Amino acid sequence: MNIIHADIEAMDKRFRTNFVNSLSGFKSLFLISTMNSKGDCNLAIFNSVIHIGANPPLLGFISRPNTVDRHTLENIKELNIYTLNSVDRSFFQKAHHTAARYERNVSEFDASGLSMQFMKDCQVPFVKESSLKIEMILREIYDIKSNGTHLVIGEIRKVHLPDGMTHDDGYIDLEKMNILSGTGLDAYHETKLIERLPYAKPKS
Amino acid sequence: MNIIHADIEAMDKRFRTNFVNSLSGFKSLFLISTMNSKGDCNLAIFNSVIHIGANPPLLGFISRPNTVDRHTLENIKELNIYTLNSVDRSFFQKAHHTAARYERNVSEFDASGLSMQFMKDCQVPFVKESSLKIEMILREIYDIKSNGTHLVIGEIRKVHLPDGMTHDDGYIDLEKMNILSGTGLDAYHETKLIERLPYAKPKS
Repeated sequence: MNIIHADIEAMDKRFRTNFVNSLSGFKSLFLISTMNSKGDCNLAIFNSVIHIGANPPLLGFISRPNTVDRHTLENIKELNIYTLNSVDRSFFQKAHHTAARYERNVSEFDASGLSMQFMKDCQVPFVKESSLKIEMILREIYDIKSNGTHLVIGEIRKVHLPDGMTHDDGYIDLEKMNILSGTGLDAYHETKLIERLPYAKPKS
Repeated sequence: MNIIHADIEAMDKRFRTNFVNSLSGFKSLFLISTMNSKGDCNLAIFNSVIHIGANPPLLGFISRPNTVDRHTLENIKELNIYTLNSVDRSFFQKAHHTAARYERNVSEFDASGLSMQFMKDCQVPFVKESSLKIEMILREIYDIKSNGTHLVIGEIRKVHLPDGMTHDDGYIDLEKMNILSGTGLDAYHETKLIERLPYAKPKS
């Protein structure tokens, strides 16, 4: 089956959104928690968090223009601090619900039934239910000319995770933490490790 | 378990690489195939492909500085065309091997045992073994100041996939295609769909 660019352009909007959003493969899922200077909280699910670098430790995500994401970006610009919280098997339906378009005065914590958790020295709440919680500080924003989205890059300030999840070499067992992966815009997947492969070296 | 920024800075390099690369969650896996103007081919595995937008259909990836990725970026700048090829259950070990640091004159197709496939109107080869194959044209490159990496954004020109993998609403069943997900730098995971959830709407 071959789909050319003109086919994609001719697709119905919802169909195209599902189709193109499926092409990028399996995705990470994170609840991004933010707060504005008035103390209003926002929580939204993102499937575009990526590794930018290990030293300094940087993570990025894509924020769309004119969507529910916007509150997230506006808040991050105000306080510079935000938290990334994993989406686990036990509450993925609640996490999905944060994508609904609530007004600014409604906290998605309340609307979704997820719980705020405050930690020492961090103004912005975490999601109590998440096994992996990461405190971030804003470093850079790149405005993507092609479509008006934004790449938001932050540096890791603190990581909270249960004991016993990190291997001797630093690898973190996300599967053991029941963290999920996503495809498209609405599909949630469990995973099963096949294998960790050794560092690739040229064959001699 | 709480890890603060100073702990990450103090980690042994390999440990830190594994640790921070695990934090971004489940990742897409793609073999990026490129060619330079002399016709030399390069093939490298990437775990940073993300959705940028559906209209126009855009995908991005992060290219690191001074690594095996570099050939990929240099080639893309020369021909503007590249292909994204899924990493499937049947050949993930071969895909992993493309991460080995081969000299410029060695094709990772030969080194890994993966097969080139040429398609009509595309100068750059695809990976024959991949079930999902995407032809891309370069649109933009953003140089990330924080760490010297690059965000490479391309537009989808053509998609090749087996018949019967696309749902009525455009969603593509990557799991049915035996496409894998990755964590850290070296872990390969199968997935199992839990559920596709309905479009999230505010509770009234």
